[in-house]
Amino acid sequence: MTKKKVGIVGGTGYTGVELIRLLSSHTEVELAWITSRSEAGKPVAQVFPNLRGVTDLIYQDFGDDSLAMMSQADLVFFATPHGVAMKQTPNLVKNGVKVIDLGADFRLQSLEDFEHWYQHIHACPDLLKTAVYGLPEINREKIAQANIIANPGCYPTTAILGLKPIIKTQNGFFAQNQQPLIDKRIIIDAKSGVSGAGRQGKLALNYAEVTDNFKAYGVDGHRHLPEIEQGINLFLESKVTHNIRFLPHLVPMIRGMYSSIHLGLTKAGTQIDWQQKFAESYKNEPFIDVLEKGLFPETRTVRASNQLRIAICQNNERQELTVMVVQDNLVKGASGQAIQNMNIIFGFAENMGLESVAVVP
Amino acid sequence: MTKKKVGIVGGTGYTGVELIRLLSSHTEVELAWITSRSEAGKPVAQVFPNLRGVTDLIYQDFGDDSLAMMSQADLVFFATPHGVAMKQTPNLVKNGVKVIDLGADFRLQSLEDFEHWYQHIHACPDLLKTAVYGLPEINREKIAQANIIANPGCYPTTAILGLKPIIKTQNGFFAQNQQPLIDKRIIIDAKSGVSGAGRQGKLALNYAEVTDNFKAYGVDGHRHLPEIEQGINLFLESKVTHNIRFLPHLVPMIRGMYSSIHLGLTKAGTQIDWQQKFAESYKNEPFIDVLEKGLFPETRTVRASNQLRIAICQNNERQELTVMVVQDNLVKGASGQAIQNMNIIFGFAENMGLESVAVVP
Amino acid sequence: MTKKKVGIVGGTGYTGVELIRLLSSHTEVELAWITSRSEAGKPVAQVFPNLRGVTDLIYQDFGDDSLAMMSQADLVFFATPHGVAMKQTPNLVKNGVKVIDLGADFRLQSLEDFEHWYQHIHACPDLLKTAVYGLPEINREKIAQANIIANPGCYPTTAILGLKPIIKTQNGFFAQNQQPLIDKRIIIDAKSGVSGAGRQGKLALNYAEVTDNFKAYGVDGHRHLPEIEQGINLFLESKVTHNIRFLPHLVPMIRGMYSSIHLGLTKAGTQIDWQQKFAESYKNEPFIDVLEKGLFPETRTVRASNQLRIAICQNNERQELTVMVVQDNLVKGASGQAIQNMNIIFGFAENMGLESVAVVP
Amino acid sequence: MTKKKVGIVGGTGYTGVELIRLLSSHTEVELAWITSRSEAGKPVAQVFPNLRGVTDLIYQDFGDDSLAMMSQADLVFFATPHGVAMKQTPNLVKNGVKVIDLGADFRLQSLEDFEHWYQHIHACPDLLKTAVYGLPEINREKIAQANIIANPGCYPTTAILGLKPIIKTQNGFFAQNQQPLIDKRIIIDAKSGVSGAGRQGKLALNYAEVTDNFKAYGVDGHRHLPEIEQGINLFLESKVTHNIRFLPHLVPMIRGMYSSIHLGLTKAGTQIDWQQKFAESYKNEPFIDVLEKGLFPETRTVRASNQLRIAICQNNERQELTVMVVQDNLVKGASGQAIQNMNIIFGFAENMGLESVAVVP
Repeated sequence: MTKKKVGIVGGTGYTGVELIRLLSSHTEVELAWITSRSEAGKPVAQVFPNLRGVTDLIYQDFGDDSLAMMSQADLVFFATPHGVAMKQTPNLVKNGVKVIDLGADFRLQSLEDFEHWYQHIHACPDLLKTAVYGLPEINREKIAQANIIANPGCYPTTAILGLKPIIKTQNGFFAQNQQPLIDKRIIIDAKSGVSGAGRQGKLALNYAEVTDNFKAYGVDGHRHLPEIEQGINLFLESKVTHNIRFLPHLVPMIRGMYSSIHLGLTKAGTQIDWQQKFAESYKNEPFIDVLEKGLFPETRTVRASNQLRIAICQNNERQELTVMVVQDNLVKGASGQAIQNMNIIFGFAENMGLESVAVVP
Repeated sequence: MTKKKVGIVGGTGYTGVELIRLLSSHTEVELAWITSRSEAGKPVAQVFPNLRGVTDLIYQDFGDDSLAMMSQADLVFFATPHGVAMKQTPNLVKNGVKVIDLGADFRLQSLEDFEHWYQHIHACPDLLKTAVYGLPEINREKIAQANIIANPGCYPTTAILGLKPIIKTQNGFFAQNQQPLIDKRIIIDAKSGVSGAGRQGKLALNYAEVTDNFKAYGVDGHRHLPEIEQGINLFLESKVTHNIRFLPHLVPMIRGMYSSIHLGLTKAGTQIDWQQKFAESYKNEPFIDVLEKGLFPETRTVRASNQLRIAICQNNERQELTVMVVQDNLVKGASGQAIQNMNIIFGFAENMGLESVAVVP
Repeated sequence: MTKKKVGIVGGTGYTGVELIRLLSSHTEVELAWITSRSEAGKPVAQVFPNLRGVTDLIYQDFGDDSLAMMSQADLVFFATPHGVAMKQTPNLVKNGVKVIDLGADFRLQSLEDFEHWYQHIHACPDLLKTAVYGLPEINREKIAQANIIANPGCYPTTAILGLKPIIKTQNGFFAQNQQPLIDKRIIIDAKSGVSGAGRQGKLALNYAEVTDNFKAYGVDGHRHLPEIEQGINLFLESKVTHNIRFLPHLVPMIRGMYSSIHLGLTKAGTQIDWQQKFAESYKNEPFIDVLEKGLFPETRTVRASNQLRIAICQNNERQELTVMVVQDNLVKGASGQAIQNMNIIFGFAENMGLESVAVVP
Repeated sequence: MTKKKVGIVGGTGYTGVELIRLLSSHTEVELAWITSRSEAGKPVAQVFPNLRGVTDLIYQDFGDDSLAMMSQADLVFFATPHGVAMKQTPNLVKNGVKVIDLGADFRLQSLEDFEHWYQHIHACPDLLKTAVYGLPEINREKIAQANIIANPGCYPTTAILGLKPIIKTQNGFFAQNQQPLIDKRIIIDAKSGVSGAGRQGKLALNYAEVTDNFKAYGVDGHRHLPEIEQGINLFLESKVTHNIRFLPHLVPMIRGMYSSIHLGLTKAGTQIDWQQKFAESYKNEPFIDVLEKGLFPETRTVRASNQLRIAICQNNERQELTVMVVQDNLVKGASGQAIQNMNIIFGFAENMGLESVAVVP
């Protein structure tokens, strides 16, 4: 069988190099081309020497031929800054090419939200309506049929998957009792490694600035909040309006993301065995690992792998429920999830190319 | 004028070496002796080569003479594991020696809480009643008169100081209106550098285990929770009962502590200008720095200094109030605060020996 | 075809978990059992949660049945402290089981050196003579026939491979001219990540001790020096006696090893194109990557992979030759090399199970 | 007594903030002004929040008045990129202002070397001849009289001080015997923390690029080599020509510098007790600490302090001498040394403002 051909637009960032690393072990897909304006003409392995001997690809700047060249792929990954994918996607889709955007162009269904948070006018609002939010654990069937996948943001992946069993359970309960199981207010106190800020030279990311330091950022508003709210309200169809406080922090580590989700339980909420709900909810998911009661996650247990681990801690006396979610921000939080989406689109086993084990220590 | 003499019991931990570092620049105090069982007979500067040329002290194991020797000091710091200070303090106090315990023996006024969380029967419950919680910003006058100071835990220092202006304001409002300004539930999502776990050989603290990793710990209960609750209820005399969720995390950094305190505002609470309340509350405090609106703290800005920095973010539309507090866990969170307490006891300027500037980068 | 069965003795260290990680992608080998005294009865995935879903194995303590149980394997890896493998190997070899010792028991052919550096009397000096030093790039044919493989130390791997093209070239030249190409003195200034010290709780390895710090260790003698000397003299059959200064340093990083090898060139030595010699020497080696002139290596380009990268810098005016070698100390420096040896023994493709790409960032 | 007034040109880099930190504890000097083009008009404490409450200074861009304004200082520190100080120094010196250049403009006495390595034509070659190399341990008397101080590079400080007792001893011996004590070839394998690269946004300094990584740089030539050679030949007046190989490496740590100096001993050289020579040579130096035999240094023992620690390891059998030198690259390697030079110029105690103890952990 001939392999599927894929291309990468904008392959010099961390999500780009991670796509190449993961695709290199994928047996049914061939990376046909990769573009970069700044590095055009250079071998990929010169920019990323860890890929020496792995790929002979050379960065392309397609110029006028871009559509013709790009359309030779069955699927294109955009690993570009926000604003690029929405310009090139319409022509690709016309030519029958599938698109997975690792940026944010197709994540927010609300044009108003998109324009407010990303400061761009959307280039293809009609296509946006057809884009599917590429979180397989909530959207698997739609992904299989989609032409355009909005690959989720890293934080929203942890938040939506960390809340899904709760919101779904509450929806069912609410339908019968018109009462919520959890308090209105949800705190998502999230922490990310530095690679989440991208591969760039920036004083704030200088080693001597980040190391032995900890800080919150985006304190008065972060782009991932509307994406999380959309996930809860639109995709999980929450029957109760929640007030979500999302506060991200920067951790001096390369990879890893940890979301501590703090919830208050109503009296009714204390009647539920949430450990069991989570275990049940994710029992068939290849990349979601619900830890047994009493075990708690560490980010390194998913380093360089597509696993996402969840633990919960329920305290009925205090009416507290804490959900802890870890993932590798570059894998399940970006490039791994993109490949998972690609596998669904192509009808491959969902874990193809995603079987490598987390690297510890 | 002759200098005051102080001693350190248990000087081989990180709080011990930090006490010596800070005392070395104190002009009115002489470190007369320091003890250690494991390192007895060794020069301090051999165990801590950064102190070469700074101190000639040799670790003592006083043995049978301990009381006589120790009583030559005006004040003794206990930088020992929990359980040591409460045994030796009664005799010292009898001999007129002041005691500052950097451990937890005198922190919890409730014997029940102490025994539950520390698994020790308290050795001197009567003296415990006379111990003063050594947080100068809430207890300055009592500290000046105390014989025994319970030096606060690192997390409680950030939590109590991060909440003080809020609880005090609410107390005043509540007295008039019988209504709270903030929701019942308070989330303290806290993060600490590794030195907080002490100077010890332990697999979980091995560099290769901690680095490039992030995790919560003490998820189902941490000793600092009752201390925080005592601070809110007893010392800040909260007129409203709050439900506090305290969740500590381990950050791959040496020093630094960051507490993100998440509060919900009632409608009445949104009427308050919290930025102004914080600024007002701490305007005379030498070691509390309230950042101006729009500025947010980083732990490194207090590295190796006794400063504690606070920022707040108020969002009335969402009825959210976020308080962010940073300190160096070994200085304001431990040894610096102990020296601040000592200065108050001795009637020195409160910042004596505590003037060194945070080390950046 | 049935898979080969292998076992691991002592699987709770970093080389143990790395063996499991790598074997999990090996299609022709089955990990049949793994032992640990301290963790016997526990699932491997409980000790190493990154292996959840990867292996169901439980740590065994075979006790009296050990030989019978162990002999069901075709090959046994010893990932144990020095002194264990040499006791159990004789019986295994008698039963036809191949042995790869990741420890040092079979590395030094000189009993005197072994006893001096490791402070053990050797338990099976006769078998020692039959053991093969498992550095495929110098010993491939012998490895294929061996019953016992001494898996090389991490530093010696970089040193011997960094010197091989030089010593071999000099040997040829010397045979004709009775003159050396390089000076007698060779400086190997080496640097290792912390995982090289093993998975243990030890104050000197505490995060707060290692981070933001750099130091040499083993300054007045390190066990890997006699192994390097043996490599040069015995295996590379150097015709010139060299005076090797080996100085290892500890780098605050998890994985990675960097050896800076400083050589002086004789006038005759400046006539050689060393870049070309290295490229020629290793052109067929699957795991040795000689960088082109002007490129220099970084340890992260081999993180979690079995690649070893070498660069050289030749300065004829100053008569200097510098060789820089990087590897992942846990892969090519330990477990990856062990699997490479296993592949040779079993007649598999040498890169089977070793194809994963270095993880960057 | 009125305090001396000093100014800082270019105070937004790491050496700038370090100057301010150190000067803040200096009782005889007042920092009168500080300049920055990029941050002109901003409070220093806004750019460096660790200085909140420490300084009220605002960055100036003096423009046309610069000379008048700058000349109000008794002494000016240039913490600027190479090329700035040499332009402004002539006028300052004319106005009787002393200059300490933390950059390289006055370090190399050879114009040819300067132009080759720094790619600038020197702006004031006549003044250059009067500049004094500000390494107090070799030049104290000249510094006291100088108008212009070339503050040494960080690496050369460790190299020259690490070699001084050896070269001086050899000079004496050579005068009598016409024989050297050490081999011609000297290897300086040096390692630096990241702050040495300055406070800048640059991809190669991004946290995710530097962390868990180790590499050499400047492999085929580094600016500090001619400065080291000048130190050995010109300032230490070596009677033997040495062939110095200087290879710097980047360590994933914020601060700290470690130089491993490898020397070969001649037979005559083995007759010397080098430990004793070092101890003797530096016994009166306030900032040089020669460790006793068997002790070896770590960079953290000098973190944030002006100490430089040296250890030596002599192996007569192998005819090896290893010198290990540590310093904080921003203190003794830059700003601390500048203040030490200032103290000498002003006739203050040499350790004024430099007494703070190294911060450990």
